[in-house]
Amino acid sequence: MNLEGLRVMGIDPGLTRCGLSVIQAGKGRQVIPVAVGVVRTPSDAELAHRLLRLSQAVEEWIDDYQPDVIAMERIFERGNVSTVMHTAHAVGVMVLAAAKRDIPVHMYTPSEVKKAVSGNGRADKKQMTSMITRILGLGAPPKPADAADALAIAVCHCWRAPLLARGNAAALALNSTTGKA
Amino acid sequence: MNLEGLRVMGIDPGLTRCGLSVIQAGKGRQVIPVAVGVVRTPSDAELAHRLLRLSQAVEEWIDDYQPDVIAMERIFERGNVSTVMHTAHAVGVMVLAAAKRDIPVHMYTPSEVKKAVSGNGRADKKQMTSMITRILGLGAPPKPADAADALAIAVCHCWRAPLLARGNAAALALNSTTGKA
Repeated sequence: MNLEGLRVMGIDPGLTRCGLSVIQAGKGRQVIPVAVGVVRTPSDAELAHRLLRLSQAVEEWIDDYQPDVIAMERIFERGNVSTVMHTAHAVGVMVLAAAKRDIPVHMYTPSEVKKAVSGNGRADKKQMTSMITRILGLGAPPKPADAADALAIAVCHCWRAPLLARGNAAALALNSTTGKA
Repeated sequence: MNLEGLRVMGIDPGLTRCGLSVIQAGKGRQVIPVAVGVVRTPSDAELAHRLLRLSQAVEEWIDDYQPDVIAMERIFERGNVSTVMHTAHAVGVMVLAAAKRDIPVHMYTPSEVKKAVSGNGRADKKQMTSMITRILGLGAPPKPADAADALAIAVCHCWRAPLLARGNAAALALNSTTGKA
């Protein structure tokens, strides 16, 4: 599976701060940074206004950068309940923005992202930022952390997608021998 | 505060089954049923497709019935984690649909809804369905439960909104004496 030229948008979902990135796959494992940023919504604003602001920002990014696929961090029910719920609402509106444009969305757990990018599923923030800076050949570490995370999620997809595709092909081959589609 | 003529859309949020209702406030505590239904999305479909389907259905309801306000059940982090997350994603897209049309959204907890409609914050499903059938003068109990819940949430808003408005007025009066807006 040759991904060369594939544009991947990475999203580190959040309502107060949402990390967004776009990278492009090059030859082999080469990945080229295209854009990175953070969308913020004021925590004292109404939920409806915050979701609208976030939705508009993500739609603008999608329309400006035309990604082929979106990779997003899978959220878990842990930590502050209200934050988790807000993040889950945010994920809903962002997945919807992708669905409206028929762009596939892939979710990765934090440890899948860490493992793909640094080889260690338990890498800390500092290690991850340093790896992502080196992998993408950036002049300085991306800030804030949400921006670095969004880049890491996009790189994770670029490097895992070929493996997943091979996995699917192997599964299909296996099923074809047992008569299943 | 006279609510006569106010159109309230009630939503019992969910991704597999989402209850939707529209009622209209009459004189005093009178409430008139306008519409009730349930939107379903197949649990074996992709999240993106399910959210898109739900979003389209809710937008159609809003555009068809032109509610002045939307009342929604507040969700809690309890029960099956994956179900809670799916419901939270669904809430995100529905609050967004309201925000895009500048329609205010009010959230009520299940016990607030039960207390407002039946006088008992711990009323069971059967009691609630029987109350809602009587209050709205329906020929038969609404089915399934999600439809009855959506009606109860809308009725809850009609009956609580005047109290909330008086509470806000009292709070404003209080603040005006202390110099706060």
